[in-house]
Amino acid sequence: MSDGTLWIGVAGLGTVGAATLDLLINHSARLAARAGKTMAVAGVCSRDRQKDRGVDLSGVAWFDDPVVLAKSDVIDVYVELIGGSDGVALASVEAALTAGKQVVTANKAMLAHHGARLSQIAETVPGASLHYESAVAGGIPGVKALREGMTANEITRVSGILNGTCNYILTEMEETGAAFADVLADAQRLGYAEADPEADVGGFDAAHKLALLTAIAFGQQVDFAGVEITGIQSVAAEDIAFARELGYCIRLLGIAERTGAGIAQSMRPCLTPRTSALGKITGVTNALVYEGNPIGAVMLTGPGAGGGATASAVVADIVDAARGNTPPTFGLPQGALVEPQRAPTDAERAEFYLRLLLADRPGALAEVAAELGKHGVSIQRMRQYDDIGDAAPVAIVTHETADSDLQQAMAGINALAVSLAVPVSMRIVSM
Amino acid sequence: MSDGTLWIGVAGLGTVGAATLDLLINHSARLAARAGKTMAVAGVCSRDRQKDRGVDLSGVAWFDDPVVLAKSDVIDVYVELIGGSDGVALASVEAALTAGKQVVTANKAMLAHHGARLSQIAETVPGASLHYESAVAGGIPGVKALREGMTANEITRVSGILNGTCNYILTEMEETGAAFADVLADAQRLGYAEADPEADVGGFDAAHKLALLTAIAFGQQVDFAGVEITGIQSVAAEDIAFARELGYCIRLLGIAERTGAGIAQSMRPCLTPRTSALGKITGVTNALVYEGNPIGAVMLTGPGAGGGATASAVVADIVDAARGNTPPTFGLPQGALVEPQRAPTDAERAEFYLRLLLADRPGALAEVAAELGKHGVSIQRMRQYDDIGDAAPVAIVTHETADSDLQQAMAGINALAVSLAVPVSMRIVSM
Repeated sequence: MSDGTLWIGVAGLGTVGAATLDLLINHSARLAARAGKTMAVAGVCSRDRQKDRGVDLSGVAWFDDPVVLAKSDVIDVYVELIGGSDGVALASVEAALTAGKQVVTANKAMLAHHGARLSQIAETVPGASLHYESAVAGGIPGVKALREGMTANEITRVSGILNGTCNYILTEMEETGAAFADVLADAQRLGYAEADPEADVGGFDAAHKLALLTAIAFGQQVDFAGVEITGIQSVAAEDIAFARELGYCIRLLGIAERTGAGIAQSMRPCLTPRTSALGKITGVTNALVYEGNPIGAVMLTGPGAGGGATASAVVADIVDAARGNTPPTFGLPQGALVEPQRAPTDAERAEFYLRLLLADRPGALAEVAAELGKHGVSIQRMRQYDDIGDAAPVAIVTHETADSDLQQAMAGINALAVSLAVPVSMRIVSM
Repeated sequence: MSDGTLWIGVAGLGTVGAATLDLLINHSARLAARAGKTMAVAGVCSRDRQKDRGVDLSGVAWFDDPVVLAKSDVIDVYVELIGGSDGVALASVEAALTAGKQVVTANKAMLAHHGARLSQIAETVPGASLHYESAVAGGIPGVKALREGMTANEITRVSGILNGTCNYILTEMEETGAAFADVLADAQRLGYAEADPEADVGGFDAAHKLALLTAIAFGQQVDFAGVEITGIQSVAAEDIAFARELGYCIRLLGIAERTGAGIAQSMRPCLTPRTSALGKITGVTNALVYEGNPIGAVMLTGPGAGGGATASAVVADIVDAARGNTPPTFGLPQGALVEPQRAPTDAERAEFYLRLLLADRPGALAEVAAELGKHGVSIQRMRQYDDIGDAAPVAIVTHETADSDLQQAMAGINALAVSLAVPVSMRIVSM
C-alpha cells in the first residue's frame, strides 16, 4: 500500500505490543512529525480480541494467523512481537520479508538462531529490511549506537549486562543474603521472572543478545552456538557474601572480544569490583560497553525490559523503516560477514575467585596451597570462615593465572580428602 | 562528482582532522564495507602543508581557502573542523550547503548560533544535509541516540556533563584539594585546557552542546541565548571540600527540562550526591542522561573529546551521509520546530548548598538562621568549620525551597554585619 501513509501490522499484543500500539495510535501526530510521514496501524494479530489494551482498535483489521498478516497487502511494515525462535514467529517474519515488507522484531532468540538466513532474505528481496533494536537491551539504542554510531571503529570488545532478570536476582541476593531459589521465587511472584525461568537464569536470553552484538561488532555471521554459557543458578549465597567482603559483586557478564585466535564469546557469572562501571549496575538495568579504536570506550545504560522501554525501541525501528534508514542487518552485507572464528574464552590469563569447603583439621589449607602451587596458581588473598559443622568454607582470590592451570588445580583440590565439596571458581573481570 | 565513490573534503587538520584523515585513508577498506561505497579524500585545507599528519596525502588536492574547497566540484561531502562560531567556518559551511553538499561539522559554537539558518539551507537545497554528531560529547553517539534511537519518546529532561575540561578540573580539585586557578594552570600545561580557557570554564562550550540537544529533545529552534550559564571559575576549594564532607561532589551540569512554563535550560555548577550516576563521572569523561516517556532514562558515557574519539563521530556522520541517512538536522523539519518557550530555570524548588563566612562571635549563627527562617528557608544540615582568623566558614544544606526565597535570604544574610563575605549558593541536583 502506498498512499503516503506507512501501514503497520503488529503481531503479538502482550505488554510490548500494547505499549507499541499506544505509541502508534495515541501519539501518532508526534511520531508522524519525526518520521516525516503518517504511520498507521492497519492490522493486528493476537489470541485475545477482547482484552482492553488501552487503545482504540476500531478500524484496525484483526488477523488470526500472523503469517497472513505478515504478507497482507494492507501493511508495509510487519512488527513481530510473538516471540520464540521458531514456529509462527519465524514463519511470519520469513513470509513478510519474502513479500518485500519491512520487518521490525524484538525476537532475539529467532535472530540468534536464524539471523543469517533472515538477513539474507531481507537483503535479496526488494523493499525488505530487518530491524531489531528492541531485541537487544530493551530501550537502550545499543544496536544503533554500535552499528551506526560507532561504525568507524575497529571494535575490540563488547561487554554487558544483558538480562534484567538475572541482574535483579543477583542484586537481591546481594542485598538480602537470600539464596538463589528464594529470590527467584520472589521475582516470579513479582513478575520480574518468567514461570519458566530457564531462558533467563540459564543465560540463554542474554547470550542471544550478545551473539547479535558480536556479529555487528566483529563483522561475522551470528554464532550463537559459539557463546560459552553458564547460568546463575549455581551462584550461592556464600559466593555473594564472600565476594562482597572481598570488594566484589557478582554479575552475569557477556563478553565478546577479539583475541589472537579469533572471537571469544562468553556469558557467565563473574566477579567484578563493586566500584567498577558494571559492578554499579543494579536491579533490572542493562548496560553495554563498547570498546574500540580509535574511540576508546562508550557505555550505555538503561531499561533492558518493560513494555514502554521496549516499545520505544520498536517504534524507533519503525521510524527508521519509514525514513528508509536500512543499514545491512548486521552492519555489513551478508556476503561480507566472515565465517565465525571461534576463539577459546579461557585463553586470557585472569584472576579467579575460588570457594572451597575444607575439613577443619591441621594441614588442610597447606594441602590446598600446595596443590595450587603445583599448577603455578598463586594466592593473592585468602579468607577462612566459621565452621559449618566440621567443615570450613574458604574463599581465595588468585593472582593472574591461565584458565587451564586453574582447572587442573581445581581438579587436584577436588581429589584431596580434605576437600568436602566440589570447589567453585569464577573469573574476576574489571571494567 | 559521482563515480560511485563518495569524495570528501576536510578543512581544518588539527588533532581531530588528522585522526579523521587517518580513518578515511588508512582504514578505507573497512569503512567502505560499512558504508556500502568507497569513500575517498579529494581535498584538504589547512594552514600548514608541511606538518606530518601520519597519512599519505599525495593525490589529495590542497586548498588555501575553505570556502573554495567547500563548493568545489571535486567533493560530495564537506567536513568542517576549523572551529569558531563565525568567520571562515560559517562561510564555508554555508557555501557547501548552498552548493548542495553534505556537510559534517564538529562545530558546536557555529550550530548554537546559526543552526536554524544552516539547517534551513540544508533542508531547502537538493542534496544538502547537515551532520554534527561530533559537536556534542565527542565520541559518544548522543545525537543519534536522542534523535533516532529515542525518537518515539516525549522527552522530559536532558542532562549531562558536557565539557571534559571542566569535569577534569573539578575532579582534580576534589582529589588534590587545590584551588581552581592552580588546577587550571596544570591542565593548561598538560594540554587538557586551552590557553584561553574561557569557553570551557565559563560554561559556554557545554552550553552550546546543551542548546543543540535541547532543540532535538523538545522540537524547538536552537536557543543558545536561553541557556542560563554559570561557569566553574568561582567554585572554591572550600566548596569542594565542604561538599565532599556532606556527601556530594560538584559538577558542571547542563539541564534542559520541560516545565509548566516551557523549556528551562541551565548550565551551572551543582552539587550532586557522590553516589549519583553523574556524581560518579570523573575526569574528562562526558555523560548524557535522556529521560522521557515511555522509555524512562537512558545514560551514555564516554570520551567527550580527543582526536580519535571525535573522529569516530565525524566518520560515523560521513557514513550516514554516504548511506543517505539524513534525518532533519534537529529531528523535525525547520518549519515544525516551535519558537523557543523559555521557562525560568529557578522555578523548581530545590535543596541548596550555602557557604557563608561569619564573624566568630556569639549569636552570629542565630542571626543567619533567623534571616533564613524569615524567608521560609529551613536548614537541613549545618557545619561550622575552624576559624580563619576571626571568621568562621559555615556550610549549610537547606531543605527544598523556592529559588526566589533563597535569593532573598542570601541578600538578607549579605546585609548582616556578621557576614564577612558574599554568601555562595549552589543547587543540589540528584540524578
